[in-house]
Amino acid sequence: MNYRMIANILGWLMIFESLFLAVPALTAVVYWESAFWAFFGTAMFCLAAGVLITRRKPANTTLYSREGFVIVALSWIVLSVFGAVPFVLTGTIPSYIDALYEAVSGFSTTGATVITDVEIVPRSVLMWRSFTHWVGGMGVLVFIMAFLPLSGGQNMHIMKAESPGPSVGKLVPHVRTTAMLLYSIYFVLTLVMFVALIIGGMDVFEALNTAFATGGTGGMGVRNSSMGEYAPHIQIIVTVFMVLFAINFNSYFFLIHAKFREIFTTEVITFLFIAASSSVIIAFNINGIYGDMGDSMRHASFTVASIMSTTGFSTEDFNLWPELSRSLIVMLMFVGGCAGSTSGGIKVSRLLILFKSMSKELRLLVHPKQVKKINIDGHPIEHEVVRSVNVYMVGYVLVFAVSMVVLAFDNMDLITNFTAVASAINNVGPGLELAGPSSNFSIFSEPVKLVLIFDMLAGRLELFPMLLLFAPTTWKK
Amino acid sequence: MNYRMIANILGWLMIFESLFLAVPALTAVVYWESAFWAFFGTAMFCLAAGVLITRRKPANTTLYSREGFVIVALSWIVLSVFGAVPFVLTGTIPSYIDALYEAVSGFSTTGATVITDVEIVPRSVLMWRSFTHWVGGMGVLVFIMAFLPLSGGQNMHIMKAESPGPSVGKLVPHVRTTAMLLYSIYFVLTLVMFVALIIGGMDVFEALNTAFATGGTGGMGVRNSSMGEYAPHIQIIVTVFMVLFAINFNSYFFLIHAKFREIFTTEVITFLFIAASSSVIIAFNINGIYGDMGDSMRHASFTVASIMSTTGFSTEDFNLWPELSRSLIVMLMFVGGCAGSTSGGIKVSRLLILFKSMSKELRLLVHPKQVKKINIDGHPIEHEVVRSVNVYMVGYVLVFAVSMVVLAFDNMDLITNFTAVASAINNVGPGLELAGPSSNFSIFSEPVKLVLIFDMLAGRLELFPMLLLFAPTTWKK
Repeated sequence: MNYRMIANILGWLMIFESLFLAVPALTAVVYWESAFWAFFGTAMFCLAAGVLITRRKPANTTLYSREGFVIVALSWIVLSVFGAVPFVLTGTIPSYIDALYEAVSGFSTTGATVITDVEIVPRSVLMWRSFTHWVGGMGVLVFIMAFLPLSGGQNMHIMKAESPGPSVGKLVPHVRTTAMLLYSIYFVLTLVMFVALIIGGMDVFEALNTAFATGGTGGMGVRNSSMGEYAPHIQIIVTVFMVLFAINFNSYFFLIHAKFREIFTTEVITFLFIAASSSVIIAFNINGIYGDMGDSMRHASFTVASIMSTTGFSTEDFNLWPELSRSLIVMLMFVGGCAGSTSGGIKVSRLLILFKSMSKELRLLVHPKQVKKINIDGHPIEHEVVRSVNVYMVGYVLVFAVSMVVLAFDNMDLITNFTAVASAINNVGPGLELAGPSSNFSIFSEPVKLVLIFDMLAGRLELFPMLLLFAPTTWKK
Repeated sequence: MNYRMIANILGWLMIFESLFLAVPALTAVVYWESAFWAFFGTAMFCLAAGVLITRRKPANTTLYSREGFVIVALSWIVLSVFGAVPFVLTGTIPSYIDALYEAVSGFSTTGATVITDVEIVPRSVLMWRSFTHWVGGMGVLVFIMAFLPLSGGQNMHIMKAESPGPSVGKLVPHVRTTAMLLYSIYFVLTLVMFVALIIGGMDVFEALNTAFATGGTGGMGVRNSSMGEYAPHIQIIVTVFMVLFAINFNSYFFLIHAKFREIFTTEVITFLFIAASSSVIIAFNINGIYGDMGDSMRHASFTVASIMSTTGFSTEDFNLWPELSRSLIVMLMFVGGCAGSTSGGIKVSRLLILFKSMSKELRLLVHPKQVKKINIDGHPIEHEVVRSVNVYMVGYVLVFAVSMVVLAFDNMDLITNFTAVASAINNVGPGLELAGPSSNFSIFSEPVKLVLIFDMLAGRLELFPMLLLFAPTTWKK
């Protein structure tokens, strides 16, 4: 294990975190909030520590895949551990475990909160929450790589471990250029959304927060009612962008290069089809509550976009909807968005691979002589990818089951427990019942919060880095 | 597809079904019940149809694996379709769909019932329900194979498709002798239980029913309170035998041959460990209700044995227990018993393979040069088996998800739907809430019942035969 190199990258990470903290610090200056000192102090500490650590350059910069996983897992932990400090220092969240929960929920783009009244919280703190979503959405290491030549072409390991989806491809030959491209698309899309919200009549602060939280598909809002109080046209704008941020960013790359045929991949089409059909079913199902098909369709499509993109915003308390809608919503949590987007969940491409490989195996059972690779959009799916998807699913179920056992000791109802875990591991935010959109996660005990913290990180990093961090084999010589 | 041969075996199946029907018919004679005519009539019809069909011997007796799957799926459907008839003819269950549900629940050893008051039902009908469990437990085709030389050594395909567990081995070189051995062990174990119950003070009729229903790990009882009214020592006898019938029958084979080291395989030890630890946790959790640790332990161990063996008997309404116990019970439904037993669920050996293969894949991620096969009890697990376990899990999740969507349309609560599907696909019987031990499945709509019928058969036959029956590839030339 190349410990020197790991420490070096974590050092750089802390320098970048101090830069991230400048965003809320600046917000505090604008609104003349005393919270400034909390952000400034944390930023200075991170900067100092980072500079100290990175001063000694490691002689050997080689990174193998196991260092890649360890770096990714530790980076996100370090990021959250220090990102939580301002919550405590500003007095917003007195308990450090709660603050850590909030920070992990932010960076992992989950969006579940322990704050009961966000409207009395300083604006700089709200900005920090939204900004952690934005940083976490595309990946913090991908961000660092876009600016920093990490090592001689071996950072693909890191990018693979941090980026969502079963098979991470490079858009262009260089990893660094790919990282820059992705962040440019991300930045532009967020900017467009910000402008759209401003034109829609939102004020600058709320528009910036909403754009950050939607961009990262996080979901922490600046109002207690989430998106419930905004005008219908604002809600529709948010719906559209939640969908856009849940689509594979490769599609935008191909859009720019006018390769129109490559934009609508099987994954994107399947995602849009599931979203549209679920919205229609839910709209009919809740029409009895709202009486107006337009309103029902708006709430249904907002909720479906919010859940599938794993953003977690809400216009209505869907916990109070009929069982059919509730059941569908829970199932959509697991589906998630497309690979290569900022969304969480299992992801449509993984489900497609699982479905296709199952059909293939069933075909093999009846025609044992037939050997064909499965393919999607004409590209054959490598055996390695299929295997890693299978392992991912097993790990997913295992983490889910163990989490459920721990949550059970809090003695809350099964739906609360089940949807709280589902919501954490899929990075959605709200669940049902006591974990529903109108409640918050401060009700859980500390051991349960630690488990949910693990689940949120495991979900965002797609299991392997977090599982490997605790596997003895990783640390063996 | 060798249609002639398929028809021939289905013909034999109907002849055997007429023999099975002789058991309730005889019971009706003993208790002088008019239900006799329903059983006698159905038996005669099956016999006549079976003799007619089997009269023309097929020239080509070759069976490939696809015929194996089709034969298994169709056999269980035919068995249930005719097995349901006496329920309607005796007037016990007027609706045929309900009767079919009851028959499938019986043969698949699920034990969920649509009958609201079993104590007014004729004794011959109760006997038929218990006996379907016993026949379904070890497998009807395995039973037929034990008596009938089906084809030249190719019936391994059928045995594989019908027997539970990831890798079906032959105990002795010949499939037919293996089938006979398994049924002998099954018969003796059932007989011992019957004698134990008689000594315990149960009357002959109830003891026979209870032994049949426990042997097949089915769970349809002869009292509305299931096992709740029986004396503690009877409940303990049933607990012990539920555990025994959930253990791999190979262990008994090795016991007879005094190969004591081979009895306690990793699977058996893991199964017993999970059962014991869950019982203790639940006993402490429910001690507040019963006040006496002895009673709590008795109810807890009975329930754990009943759920893990997927029998489904109950001494208490565990739906009313605290959430921790309820959550654990739901999770144990998925675990199930050992492979090669009469129990349902995912099975401990499959979970072991999944867990081990995941560890291996995680190790491969950090040490890509390492290539080792996983092994259990010193035997390497073939790649084929690991793959089929993975495919099984994907199919399992898929069938589960689709079932949940259909059940959602009945607009019942999520826990009812989730546990009803879990209970059906794992062949347990009761779930929670409206599907709990004190309610019954007559509340569901007919489309939902059809889905649960599919799930019960899919669960009993471990997915592949039922999935392949509906796959176009199976029927292609």
